Amino acid sequence: MKRVYVDHAAATPVKKEVLQAMLPYFVEHFANPSTVYDMGSEIKDVIEEQREKVAKLIGAKGKEIIFTSSGAEANNLAIKGAVFARKKKGNHIIVSSIEHHSVLNAARFFERLLDFEVTFLPVDEYGLVDPKRLAEIIRPDTLLVSIMHANNEIGTIEPISELSAICRERGVLFHTDAVATVGNIPVDVNELGVDLLSLSGVSMGGPKGIGALYFRDNLRLMPLIHGGIQEMGRRGGTENVPGIVGLGKAAELAMNELPDRESHVRMLRDRLVTGIQERIEKVTFTGHPQRRLPNHASFCVEAIEGEALLLMLNEEGIYVNTGSACASKALKTSPVLVAIKIPPDLAQGSIVFTLDRANTMEEVEYILEKLPSVVEKLRSFSPLWNKKRRAAA
Amino acid sequence: MKRVYVDHAAATPVKKEVLQAMLPYFVEHFANPSTVYDMGSEIKDVIEEQREKVAKLIGAKGKEIIFTSSGAEANNLAIKGAVFARKKKGNHIIVSSIEHHSVLNAARFFERLLDFEVTFLPVDEYGLVDPKRLAEIIRPDTLLVSIMHANNEIGTIEPISELSAICRERGVLFHTDAVATVGNIPVDVNELGVDLLSLSGVSMGGPKGIGALYFRDNLRLMPLIHGGIQEMGRRGGTENVPGIVGLGKAAELAMNELPDRESHVRMLRDRLVTGIQERIEKVTFTGHPQRRLPNHASFCVEAIEGEALLLMLNEEGIYVNTGSACASKALKTSPVLVAIKIPPDLAQGSIVFTLDRANTMEEVEYILEKLPSVVEKLRSFSPLWNKKRRAAA
Repeated sequence: MKRVYVDHAAATPVKKEVLQAMLPYFVEHFANPSTVYDMGSEIKDVIEEQREKVAKLIGAKGKEIIFTSSGAEANNLAIKGAVFARKKKGNHIIVSSIEHHSVLNAARFFERLLDFEVTFLPVDEYGLVDPKRLAEIIRPDTLLVSIMHANNEIGTIEPISELSAICRERGVLFHTDAVATVGNIPVDVNELGVDLLSLSGVSMGGPKGIGALYFRDNLRLMPLIHGGIQEMGRRGGTENVPGIVGLGKAAELAMNELPDRESHVRMLRDRLVTGIQERIEKVTFTGHPQRRLPNHASFCVEAIEGEALLLMLNEEGIYVNTGSACASKALKTSPVLVAIKIPPDLAQGSIVFTLDRANTMEEVEYILEKLPSVVEKLRSFSPLWNKKRRAAA
Repeated sequence: MKRVYVDHAAATPVKKEVLQAMLPYFVEHFANPSTVYDMGSEIKDVIEEQREKVAKLIGAKGKEIIFTSSGAEANNLAIKGAVFARKKKGNHIIVSSIEHHSVLNAARFFERLLDFEVTFLPVDEYGLVDPKRLAEIIRPDTLLVSIMHANNEIGTIEPISELSAICRERGVLFHTDAVATVGNIPVDVNELGVDLLSLSGVSMGGPKGIGALYFRDNLRLMPLIHGGIQEMGRRGGTENVPGIVGLGKAAELAMNELPDRESHVRMLRDRLVTGIQERIEKVTFTGHPQRRLPNHASFCVEAIEGEALLLMLNEEGIYVNTGSACASKALKTSPVLVAIKIPPDLAQGSIVFTLDRANTMEEVEYILEKLPSVVEKLRSFSPLWNKKRRAAA
């Protein structure tokens, strides 16, 4: 059967070159990098090379990169690490209301257990955070602001450099979750003006089980995983050497492929968006029309359950998402869609396409061929839809 | 050059079967297990199968296993997760004084930042914790006791079932760091009577970047990595699918190999110990002579720097450790050796051999051939040794 996979924000196959780079570190070069004999110190050097590669992709220095086990761990390390290291200075955290669960729940942890106050910044109908609003709510006791670079569910890219400038002026740390952007669009920590930035290899054909946190200039950070001296004393546990090598290789490849990839996925995405809007009535495009990820198209389809749509498309060999990847089994209504004021009924019909360089125009045409009839069929089961139809007729 | 690797507590090459099992999950079966389409739900099933395999190795149920990124993360999740979930009930933690850094530093985190009191239980000259001593120091506000199953540096196996019984009587949670034992000796969570147990694949030819925490019967646990609904809501972040498959396979193989492995490494170890004691004067065997890991031999060699010894053995193709794997670059005197009252001077000459099934008697004989002359050479550089020699002559 034909397989058209357009859920690259959830997972991407590991690139062949990435897997090739990783392989020698399972069996042959297996030593613990913390050991002092040659087998170990060689591995230590390899890790430092990967740190440089990942740093280069985001305009940072190698010593500003901490390897973690995922983007979620990087988010937790950024928030808990920065806040615990400054606990005596205040008890206020600001996050946007459309952050990833790892950010939202890390912030709520401080609220529930440690008597912190968390302000959840609202967004406009496109999902944008308003810098003026941020400036108003920062307080002298604000320790950290965390606003994502781009949202996975609606594709919107936030005005990070404006937001971070406000924090810098006031001496407040600024973290951004860039898991959705690094490898997809150019990301430069200095242009963004951030103190902390989370990334993973998900969008760039890197392996699972590895992520990284950028932390500016030796910034104080309490470990999330306490342990030995690994990762400059900021993350304990034996290093995931193959994973680190895989992320390094993926970063190196992403660096070279980025311009090409961006224009390719943008072209496919634009065709997908106009095609869907032409072919299907009562479909609401979500997120910002321009300020969005080039590979990202998201809609809410009226009178449809997103999960049913997804499963029927699955039957046609089309793999899409509804809502955010990790939340899709947990929640009936997406908090992101609630935040951009999509009515709850309409929010049920969320569908998210995330493209990759390997996707083709033929695949997009296949989606445009199959999707309308699947939507039609599902709608034919909807009493509400049929009632509306009859009323309109 | 000949390579005799006897530092298996620090790292072990991934078994060929383990790598083979992992490979399909990088490129082919790459989907995010949290997605609801077939590609994703298949992976979800695969993860649950691995949970069963890991559980089986330690006499647990699959739903009692949380996958983590390392033994260190499992230790942090056990301690922080259990303590934060019970924060209002008390503020006292007990750990032994010879725990791994991940346990010691997680406990110190509560002491330094959250006004907890931590009692560091002393050990005897063999490294054994005394159950009577534990019974004396447990208090009504004690939330958690964490004592390792076996110590990596001196090989001593603690009387866990006696220690856990004392905690159970008093309604106090008991955690054991079993990273050094799982895969090396039979481990059964019910025989041990523990509520929480950390493990990794390091000793069983599993990959880096993966570990697991056993938690009894749906025990309350605050996530360390907050996020989505992964790992029964107790650990956020996209699952490291290849790592999980690797750990599952390693556990399955370890289950079958254990009896054989144990007798093989015990035989080699016994030869190594008697051989060293016969050939080298002024060498102190560390840890318990009987209650110890079967693959573990540890000594302190008088008038020697452990690191110098290690590097000279490296020249001969022999790979050993000095002190604990993660601490070896960080510390001059091992806290474990201090705890068992080895004089600081002697503690400098720590050397640790950890064997694996792949090691041979020929390799042990090679070590016994090379080690005495290396020790002799290093001692010839020591003014103190030469002075003692002259005085004795």
